[in-house]
Amino acid sequence: MLDRGSEAYLKPHERIDDLQLKGLKIIQNPEGFCFGIDAVLLSNFIKTKKNDFVVEFGTGTGIIPILLSGKANFNQLVAFEVQEPVADMATRSVQMNGLEDRLTIINDNLINASQHVPNGSVNVVFSNPPYMSGEGGLKNEGELKTISRHEIYCTLEDIVKTASKLLQFRGRFYMIHRPNRMVDILTLCRTYKLEPKEIRMIQPYVGKRPNLFLIMCSKGGQPDLKFLDPLVVYNQDGSYTDEIYEIYQSENIDVFKREEAL
Amino acid sequence: MLDRGSEAYLKPHERIDDLQLKGLKIIQNPEGFCFGIDAVLLSNFIKTKKNDFVVEFGTGTGIIPILLSGKANFNQLVAFEVQEPVADMATRSVQMNGLEDRLTIINDNLINASQHVPNGSVNVVFSNPPYMSGEGGLKNEGELKTISRHEIYCTLEDIVKTASKLLQFRGRFYMIHRPNRMVDILTLCRTYKLEPKEIRMIQPYVGKRPNLFLIMCSKGGQPDLKFLDPLVVYNQDGSYTDEIYEIYQSENIDVFKREEAL
Repeated sequence: MLDRGSEAYLKPHERIDDLQLKGLKIIQNPEGFCFGIDAVLLSNFIKTKKNDFVVEFGTGTGIIPILLSGKANFNQLVAFEVQEPVADMATRSVQMNGLEDRLTIINDNLINASQHVPNGSVNVVFSNPPYMSGEGGLKNEGELKTISRHEIYCTLEDIVKTASKLLQFRGRFYMIHRPNRMVDILTLCRTYKLEPKEIRMIQPYVGKRPNLFLIMCSKGGQPDLKFLDPLVVYNQDGSYTDEIYEIYQSENIDVFKREEAL
Repeated sequence: MLDRGSEAYLKPHERIDDLQLKGLKIIQNPEGFCFGIDAVLLSNFIKTKKNDFVVEFGTGTGIIPILLSGKANFNQLVAFEVQEPVADMATRSVQMNGLEDRLTIINDNLINASQHVPNGSVNVVFSNPPYMSGEGGLKNEGELKTISRHEIYCTLEDIVKTASKLLQFRGRFYMIHRPNRMVDILTLCRTYKLEPKEIRMIQPYVGKRPNLFLIMCSKGGQPDLKFLDPLVVYNQDGSYTDEIYEIYQSENIDVFKREEAL
């Protein structure tokens, strides 16, 4: 951590949010891109071990690496972010939290990941990739948001193909995405030897169609897909369900401060 | 309908169940094979039109064609059943109900369907194929062998490939299956140009992992998968949910008489 006040890390329009997790903070830009519930759910879903080498594709503000650094075991985490101003913001969040020894932000397109990380060397790859607006999707203005949430810089196939290249045998790939892309995702994952092992559907309400899903795949794994209990976000009265409170608590995030992706 | 008492259609160990649907009855063998909730849910999910030519792969007792004949519009329905005694039982049910003009049971393997039905001539193909009971995935080689035994007569690939051959452009394919086969099913369907358009997950209880799912695919359709609201079978107290009662009512089946597949 550099010896200066947190405000020194800020650029115009940015703000610092306290993650209430071991003193960790994150820089966000309310006019650009703030993390949503999907980042929190994916962070909660990812499992890492003490010596793991972990890679993220498209880190945005760097929220998931920073959350993981506060609660999960891993050795090194390298996060790619193609947008220079966003990568810069994430890098400053890493510096502000003094996490440079475990987290590295690389300002490059994930399709070039093999130039930075040896193929077959990674234990866990994860991504909360841009997804198209659509039914139940996101409709935001602003260039940064548009780029973050659409497949401008890379396709779903780029993500899956590159993840497979980096991962070692039995390495794991985690992603959160929209159910309307499930055929694409399952076929691409199998094509690139990332066998889907676990899926968890996320429903806004009991009895309502899912609008997100979590998936875990195993590099070179045997076919054996397990659907987990669905995760319901809201009670009928619009309040969060107990499980969402538990997830936010386990991530130590103030549930009321977060912008919602659902 | 032949002019004789219903009992004349029975062989040893068989019984006749009244479907309470326009006087329709079905012959079943309690020591062999009785229809379950999956047949009723699939029947409820299938949509047909007045002039449709419809084909079923693996009709068992003939329950779905007989249910459809009581409530749905279609022109002709041809149902394949590879096991001779079962096909014979289904044929007697068709005769007993006087449905020979609309329903035809063919005692042959579905992989030979093109010898009986012209390729590209069918509007709707559906199947409630054999699958392993149990909500989890495959746990050991023994279970894999059991699965293989269940797929002695045909594989999932045979079903999807043959359905695609028979269907005309924009014809529809309906199936109910276990979620642990979803990767296989989605990849096979896309491979054989049956694009998955709708999926409905079936959960035994609210908040519990799905143990069945319904799928509708369109021959030559564009990628655009829609997840429907999940279907919950039981209330917390073990009684059927209102929606299950509504489905059984729309099928006019006495809900208490049926054997359960869930």
